[in-house]
Amino acid sequence: MPPASAISAAAAARSLRLASRLTPKSAPLPRGFELSAVSTGVKKNAALDLALIHSTQPCTAAASFTQNLFQAAPVRVSRTILDTTGGTGIRTVAVNSGCANACTGVEGDKDAQTMVDLACEAVGAPKGAGLVLSTGVIGQRLQMEKIKAGLVKAGKGLGNGDEGALKSAATAIMTTDTFPKYLSRALTLPESGVRFTLAGMCKGAGMIHPNMKVHDPTTASATRPLHATMLGVLMTDAPLTAPAATSALSHALGDSFNCISVDGDTSTNDTIVLLANGLAAPKTTTMSAADTATFATHLRTFARDLAAMIVWDGEGATKFVSVRVTAPTEPAARAIASSIATSPLVKTALYGQDANWGRILCAVGYASVPGGVALDAGAVSLKVRSNGGELKLVENGQPKYPIDEAVASKILAEEEIEIVVDMGMGSKAQANYYTCDFSDEYVHINADYRS
Amino acid sequence: MPPASAISAAAAARSLRLASRLTPKSAPLPRGFELSAVSTGVKKNAALDLALIHSTQPCTAAASFTQNLFQAAPVRVSRTILDTTGGTGIRTVAVNSGCANACTGVEGDKDAQTMVDLACEAVGAPKGAGLVLSTGVIGQRLQMEKIKAGLVKAGKGLGNGDEGALKSAATAIMTTDTFPKYLSRALTLPESGVRFTLAGMCKGAGMIHPNMKVHDPTTASATRPLHATMLGVLMTDAPLTAPAATSALSHALGDSFNCISVDGDTSTNDTIVLLANGLAAPKTTTMSAADTATFATHLRTFARDLAAMIVWDGEGATKFVSVRVTAPTEPAARAIASSIATSPLVKTALYGQDANWGRILCAVGYASVPGGVALDAGAVSLKVRSNGGELKLVENGQPKYPIDEAVASKILAEEEIEIVVDMGMGSKAQANYYTCDFSDEYVHINADYRS
Repeated sequence: MPPASAISAAAAARSLRLASRLTPKSAPLPRGFELSAVSTGVKKNAALDLALIHSTQPCTAAASFTQNLFQAAPVRVSRTILDTTGGTGIRTVAVNSGCANACTGVEGDKDAQTMVDLACEAVGAPKGAGLVLSTGVIGQRLQMEKIKAGLVKAGKGLGNGDEGALKSAATAIMTTDTFPKYLSRALTLPESGVRFTLAGMCKGAGMIHPNMKVHDPTTASATRPLHATMLGVLMTDAPLTAPAATSALSHALGDSFNCISVDGDTSTNDTIVLLANGLAAPKTTTMSAADTATFATHLRTFARDLAAMIVWDGEGATKFVSVRVTAPTEPAARAIASSIATSPLVKTALYGQDANWGRILCAVGYASVPGGVALDAGAVSLKVRSNGGELKLVENGQPKYPIDEAVASKILAEEEIEIVVDMGMGSKAQANYYTCDFSDEYVHINADYRS
Repeated sequence: MPPASAISAAAAARSLRLASRLTPKSAPLPRGFELSAVSTGVKKNAALDLALIHSTQPCTAAASFTQNLFQAAPVRVSRTILDTTGGTGIRTVAVNSGCANACTGVEGDKDAQTMVDLACEAVGAPKGAGLVLSTGVIGQRLQMEKIKAGLVKAGKGLGNGDEGALKSAATAIMTTDTFPKYLSRALTLPESGVRFTLAGMCKGAGMIHPNMKVHDPTTASATRPLHATMLGVLMTDAPLTAPAATSALSHALGDSFNCISVDGDTSTNDTIVLLANGLAAPKTTTMSAADTATFATHLRTFARDLAAMIVWDGEGATKFVSVRVTAPTEPAARAIASSIATSPLVKTALYGQDANWGRILCAVGYASVPGGVALDAGAVSLKVRSNGGELKLVENGQPKYPIDEAVASKILAEEEIEIVVDMGMGSKAQANYYTCDFSDEYVHINADYRS
């Protein structure tokens, strides 16, 4: 095995290559959105660690939050604000990295609320018109003096013109990420002809297995959303109502942030926020049903492309693996895909480029499939494919002997691999999960994260 | 990081130390049991890879099997035999390592049945009076010519007198295990005064997260037992009826083989068999209720001590971690303990001796607790302890600031650590899980297991 420094050099080279392939050189912001990124000193070496987002016009906002029992203070505070405002009138979002403000007790709640107040003050917005997101070490208090000074400085640095602003903001919310994750797209609503921009950023590399529920302010007390420390902020100038924003975000999560896994650990802080200020169209515009549906489709693709960056940058990852499962029901397909995507034995075999397909079937077999779904081991088919080729491994429960090891090696040598499972029995429901392999680098990163 | 060879040397030294501490120098067999271990050539380098167990008198037998959808051929065949015989009249058990005979289709089923027939022939038992267990690579066929020759040879080598026979048999069923796992105890039933022996062996180091259900021949078609590749055979000369054996095994699993985890992967082959031939007492003896209860208590302790060896020898492990959870219900306590015990982030932090307790709370928070159990984040308490001391980290949901890092380091430097969680709210139900840490050695072992 090469020494740690050589591994890190290889990882660094991979990171540069991925960043250049996956993220745009320039990233225009939607009309009315201003961004700023500063260093507060919470992170070492004067690294950027605070991003401030401001909209000159009030936004409709939708959000999805972790369903972890221990929701972090910023999650609880932001949920309350969405309940109070009904997801309207939001003007600013403050995101810090380095400290998750999670498991910090009642003092942590006060800190998160103070952070919202300071952000609103910094952008000149009314009190309570902001949201707050945090990521970093769990169980440590925010250093509020540094956060306060940082927000004042960030408020002064807000701007819309700089096409590098989104990249800087995405950099400021990173933790173990090796590159900033952001996208910007110019799109058109087909019926009204309205041209709008969709821009967004996210972060995450470990503690990634989101299981979020879109927050519905109208049924707030009845729901407890799900999670991973993954954060994301999506911004648009399309004219969305609050219910349309909630619905579009919910649709988007089903093939993006809620079906990625790095390590199976679901965080206390996972949050995705969607902000829409409507500045792309005249104030009185209401989107037609067709345009609303088109927006939702665009948002789903956009969210998937952003979420995929998290998997590509998974801690210690060397492979991007799509797990595609067809099963009798969608929850069954999701449970099976999730089981494969989180199995340490499947993931270490992928790292080793070992065609140990028995481990995949094994993970299918112990999936926590919701009750009442009948499955038949004798109906299952399994194949793997990549740019290196395709190999059927099991058909109708029977292994395809002998395995062509030369083809298997060629398939598994690729950086991007697909595992395709069909549970048979006329299954039609599909689910995807996006995951990465499991390397010794993951262990190195996580055995000593705090120091 | 040290080179791979240095890690292996350290692991080898640890293994020797553990074997000498955990396993006995001599291990007498119960009356009437004969063991044999041979090399068939399935494993490389003439390593022992086939164990044969024979009882001169017919045994009552109870067994628990994996609930994986893809139950391996030996599991399906052994279950059918227990259904046919009602768990009586069993005379032999054949166990091979190197090939799991799992996901091998209809041909694999035939191979497993042939292995039973050959074992019965080898010990001179009636057809159908045997069980079969396999462990090793999934998805490869058994090399039946080698198995056949091995069983003939093993049949000729059977003996009861050698106090090293159990160790040899335990060695023959190893896969990535670094030391053979076996125990033997001389015990007494208090009411009848019958003196009996309990002996047993098990194997397992990876793909360990058993979730087995004791097989009940009377309701066979209604149940689908659970699993990890863990195998175990427990032998006694105590006079147990088949229902008493089933009941005792079920009681034993609850704090032993069903609450250990190395990697969270539940195997296609997990099997625990209990054989009782009654030779410790006159043929007509029926155990009293008090003696039956005492036997069950002894079996539970015995099974836990055996199961603990699997965790100590977990692939790449450097720590033995007991997770003790008190919750409103036993299933809730088990779900939370399992969630902590399988979290890669908790396990890498333990490897790094990092007091990152936020990750423990996080894993508590995303546990799949059965519906209908109300939990309160504000009621949770958490502490860690070891021979190095005890540290309260959270009380009633509030973190205990500041953490005494010196004490934390002392606690986490120990090889044996306890994580204690109390969900509060007057919780009384308890569950334990035994797990190990997660090291880069685990990745090395599993990235290239087949070669």
